[in-house]
Amino acid sequence: MAELHVNIVLASGARIGRGKAVLLEGIRDTGSISAAARALGMDYKRAWLLLDSLDSAFDTPVVERKAGGVGGGGAALSPFGLELLGRYRRIEAAAMALAEADLEVLEQHALPSAGPKI
Amino acid sequence: MAELHVNIVLASGARIGRGKAVLLEGIRDTGSISAAARALGMDYKRAWLLLDSLDSAFDTPVVERKAGGVGGGGAALSPFGLELLGRYRRIEAAAMALAEADLEVLEQHALPSAGPKI
Repeated sequence: MAELHVNIVLASGARIGRGKAVLLEGIRDTGSISAAARALGMDYKRAWLLLDSLDSAFDTPVVERKAGGVGGGGAALSPFGLELLGRYRRIEAAAMALAEADLEVLEQHALPSAGPKI
Repeated sequence: MAELHVNIVLASGARIGRGKAVLLEGIRDTGSISAAARALGMDYKRAWLLLDSLDSAFDTPVVERKAGGVGGGGAALSPFGLELLGRYRRIEAAAMALAEADLEVLEQHALPSAGPKI
C-alpha cells in the first residue's frame, strides 16, 4: 500500500524525517547509539551525523550520552528527545489516516514497477 | 515557521513530493515544460526526469504534450495529472493544519541556525 512520509522542516532549515525518527527509536530501545545503528544497518558515522544535526537544531539535547561503566557507557533519549519523537510519530500517523482514501485511489492507478526513483 | 513536507510513496517505490507538485503547477500555469522549468530555476533535464518518473509510476499520463504550432507546441496536465496534484496539495494542507500546534512547540526549541542540513 502507498504510504505518506512526512518531514518536519524548521524555519532554520533543519529537518526531522523518518530516518531520524527510526534512529531515535533504536536508541530508546537499545540504550546505545552503536547498537541502534547496527540494528538499523546504518553506518555509525551516519547515525552520529544525524544526531549531531538534531542537536544543533534545538536548544535542548535530544540524546543523553552516559560515559563509562561496564560495556562502555550508553545513550538514552532526553525528555525532549522523547517528546520530539512522540510528536513526529503522532503527526505521521494522523497524516497517514487523513490521506488513506486518496492513497488508495492513487495506488489503483500505480504501475507495479516505477522506473527510476526520483 | 516550521513546515511539514509530505511525500506520497507508492508500493512500487515511486514518490510524489513537493518538487514534482511545484513542477506540475508550473506546467499547468505556463502551458509548457520548458517555461515551467525556467520559472522554477530548474534544469530542463531535471524537469524531464521528474515527469518521466511520474509517467512510469502510473498507468495514465500525467502530462499531455502538444506538438507543433507557433512557439513549438506545449504541454498541459492531463485530467489525471490535475487529480494527482489536487490530492497531493489537499493532503499536504490537511497534514499541515493538524500538525500546526506541534510545529509551534518544536519551533520554540529551535535554534536559528541548524548546522548541516541532513
